[in-house]
Amino acid sequence: MATSVSVETLNPKVLRCEYAVRGEIAIHAQHLLQQLERQPGSLPFDEVLFCNIGNPQSFGLKPITFFREVLALCDHPNLLDQEETKSLFSTDAITRAKKILARIPGRATGAYSHSQGIKGLRDEIAAGIASRDGFPANADDIFLTNGASPGVHMMMQLLIRNGRDGIMCPIPQYSLYSASIALHGGALVPYYLDESSGWGLEISELKRQLEDARSKGIAVRALVVSILEILLGRLVSMFSFVLKKDPVSKREIRCNSLRSEKELKKVYQENIYVTNKKFNSFKKIVRSMGYNGDDLRLVSFQSVSKGYYGECGKRGGYMEVTGFSTTVREQLYKIASVNLCSNITGQILSSLVMNPPKAGDASYDLYEAEKDSILESLARRAKAMAFAFNGIDGITCNKTEGAMYLFPRIHLPQKAIETASAVNKAPDVFYARRLLDTTGIVVTPGSGFGQVAGTWHLRFTILPPEEKIPSIISRFREFHEEFMAQYRD
Amino acid sequence: MATSVSVETLNPKVLRCEYAVRGEIAIHAQHLLQQLERQPGSLPFDEVLFCNIGNPQSFGLKPITFFREVLALCDHPNLLDQEETKSLFSTDAITRAKKILARIPGRATGAYSHSQGIKGLRDEIAAGIASRDGFPANADDIFLTNGASPGVHMMMQLLIRNGRDGIMCPIPQYSLYSASIALHGGALVPYYLDESSGWGLEISELKRQLEDARSKGIAVRALVVSILEILLGRLVSMFSFVLKKDPVSKREIRCNSLRSEKELKKVYQENIYVTNKKFNSFKKIVRSMGYNGDDLRLVSFQSVSKGYYGECGKRGGYMEVTGFSTTVREQLYKIASVNLCSNITGQILSSLVMNPPKAGDASYDLYEAEKDSILESLARRAKAMAFAFNGIDGITCNKTEGAMYLFPRIHLPQKAIETASAVNKAPDVFYARRLLDTTGIVVTPGSGFGQVAGTWHLRFTILPPEEKIPSIISRFREFHEEFMAQYRD
Repeated sequence: MATSVSVETLNPKVLRCEYAVRGEIAIHAQHLLQQLERQPGSLPFDEVLFCNIGNPQSFGLKPITFFREVLALCDHPNLLDQEETKSLFSTDAITRAKKILARIPGRATGAYSHSQGIKGLRDEIAAGIASRDGFPANADDIFLTNGASPGVHMMMQLLIRNGRDGIMCPIPQYSLYSASIALHGGALVPYYLDESSGWGLEISELKRQLEDARSKGIAVRALVVSILEILLGRLVSMFSFVLKKDPVSKREIRCNSLRSEKELKKVYQENIYVTNKKFNSFKKIVRSMGYNGDDLRLVSFQSVSKGYYGECGKRGGYMEVTGFSTTVREQLYKIASVNLCSNITGQILSSLVMNPPKAGDASYDLYEAEKDSILESLARRAKAMAFAFNGIDGITCNKTEGAMYLFPRIHLPQKAIETASAVNKAPDVFYARRLLDTTGIVVTPGSGFGQVAGTWHLRFTILPPEEKIPSIISRFREFHEEFMAQYRD
Repeated sequence: MATSVSVETLNPKVLRCEYAVRGEIAIHAQHLLQQLERQPGSLPFDEVLFCNIGNPQSFGLKPITFFREVLALCDHPNLLDQEETKSLFSTDAITRAKKILARIPGRATGAYSHSQGIKGLRDEIAAGIASRDGFPANADDIFLTNGASPGVHMMMQLLIRNGRDGIMCPIPQYSLYSASIALHGGALVPYYLDESSGWGLEISELKRQLEDARSKGIAVRALVVSILEILLGRLVSMFSFVLKKDPVSKREIRCNSLRSEKELKKVYQENIYVTNKKFNSFKKIVRSMGYNGDDLRLVSFQSVSKGYYGECGKRGGYMEVTGFSTTVREQLYKIASVNLCSNITGQILSSLVMNPPKAGDASYDLYEAEKDSILESLARRAKAMAFAFNGIDGITCNKTEGAMYLFPRIHLPQKAIETASAVNKAPDVFYARRLLDTTGIVVTPGSGFGQVAGTWHLRFTILPPEEKIPSIISRFREFHEEFMAQYRD
């Protein structure tokens, strides 16, 4: 009965879990950063560029002023009684803070809330969803969470019983899904997106993988869908795969609908850089198709980390849970309650992003200007980087239509693949590590997201400041050309 | 291969999990609260009094001004450039906010941080721990978390492999432990505290339960210790049970030392209401005994939710992890990274509570006055409520020496126990439900924390405002006397 705490005696699910976004390359980058701080000039570059994660404010993107004004006033409500506050804060931020405080029992922003989040804020969020979609939303269906990730974990925890329970995920997928499935001991059932059609989805692929999983005795419990993920390499939406009746045909309808309507997921609902497509929530589409709340189990995730607000560090988010029975919902509530509640600052911010200033509000012009400036700049960055990647020999890259990432494919020579294999590394990890050591540029290797066998990618965020992009691209190009020359077949 | 999502097909670990603090009684209380809002006067009481959880600000306790000033400035750093700010904020809050912002890469309070938390804040916290204990602390050992609960879950997730892995917990225990052990599929190995000696701990009990668990094939992987929990019914500390050498004798030494030094756990390190005992961290005690970092695996949890600050809704906290190998630590880091990072507001607040204003700082006098006023009032409440409970027939109650709870024992007549059993309820749940329906007072039944078979308790927070305590006690007494009269043997 070995009880000593060593790697050999840890939970094997933890050992199996991999989380590429903060994995080997990211950890090594932290060490290089510390080395640069201790010994400037000791490396062939003078800054570490974290292009591996979508962390806008770390690249200098400024938060929306109105949101931060309201948060400050809610953190320190005494300010609302002071005359000077009127000259420091916009009038609508003051009004909004008062309204939010009135919706919090005892105006106590430091008290635990209901485990689903403050009811008054959930009402605001439900109103925001209803106004966006044109279909009703209910505060009782909203679970406020510390960012979107805990919601995904909760659903995995609820649904996965053992290694024969499968969750279907698009490949490439966001590493959160594979990590969470591994931690909960389930099986990831992949469905591959087609890079040649701009990461398109074929229904035949979905069917084939579903049948394949079933033939192996896997019960597929949920399907993760995220069209923006499909296009670009990030999340977020998961919904229950299992309809009450006639699941296959309804699933087909749904997926076809998705394809034709170019649905983009909520987390990135504002980050759309093409003019011929627009955001439609998954919920809006299924409701438009006549599914009401009872005949489709749908869980939608939203986060304050993305969009033009990019408030990753505030850990705000929610999931909207529809179509489940009361008894299942009670179990979900229980899981939420074990962590008491999500942080109130994140809860407030979630209500703000779903109800930003409106025309006529004192902050409206500033808010619009800040938002447009961020989104226009991101669109320019996305375009410039994709154009640059496609101009490099041995690299092809789908254009980004939204969100914050590119997923360029690197066409590696066989000799590079063999050299990587000899040191026991995936070729894209080998490449990414060399890129980091040579240039200070941090990317996430495609193998962390899954890719078709024999293809290799890098996930690059488009977030670096515009003025830095030319030098990043030129450093990257120089590295790439040397790498390819070294391993030419 | 049933895949439909119903209670029957959910993860059985979720179904087995119980979380009494937010369980049946708490949920029913929420319904009554809503009913009172919709139909005032429709119940035999006009307010629902949540005496079931330690949620100070929900009872009107005010946050510490200095903490909130710093949070507001960090949320909206533009304020630091404004002249009016000098008249609205104390000078040391301004200085501290600037110092904190300088420690955050890019001054970005909206960016994801390192998954263990912002390094500069962990440095501050480590300095606070070292200054408190007189022993070194290292920022690399600190994991900042959304309150203390996620840290406990992470340790359970890391250590529990299957149902034959046991975690020893004091009974009564905080429900978080039993809930987390159930969610991760482990076994709770109880050790009972002795109510008659003021919730004391006998080494013989610890040994007996350990041997008993081992004889059943349970590998005991960790021991949860929390002296304040022992006294009063709440958390928080867990440390690895397994020493490298001579575990039994060292364990004995440790426990004896605990008994004699009256160690109180960190989460409640400020809430001590007796003059002949003082707070010593567990780490300080084991270091004083000569255990260095390598020969004892110790995980200490701290939270901003308790103490005189009571900032439950901010979800700030940390765990200090010492004595584990690098490879085990890497696995823990991986679990932390899957949720990216804890919320930055909570991170900042954690650094503040460990480094509050010092003599000479502009805020010092106000800070001391606020702190003393809260702690003195809590001490009076604790004393008044214990005294009142002991004055009621059929109730006995240990005095509270710290924290925020009392755990009175109700000596129920046999007829009450049988009536409860007939409706399939634990007698204390039956009692608590009746208490709630009659008076609006919400308590957590003792069975949610564990209790010696045949004894029944209620957990009562001491937090209601002092002016309300007499009426709460008199409502409670009246209910209790009627209940006892109804079921007299």
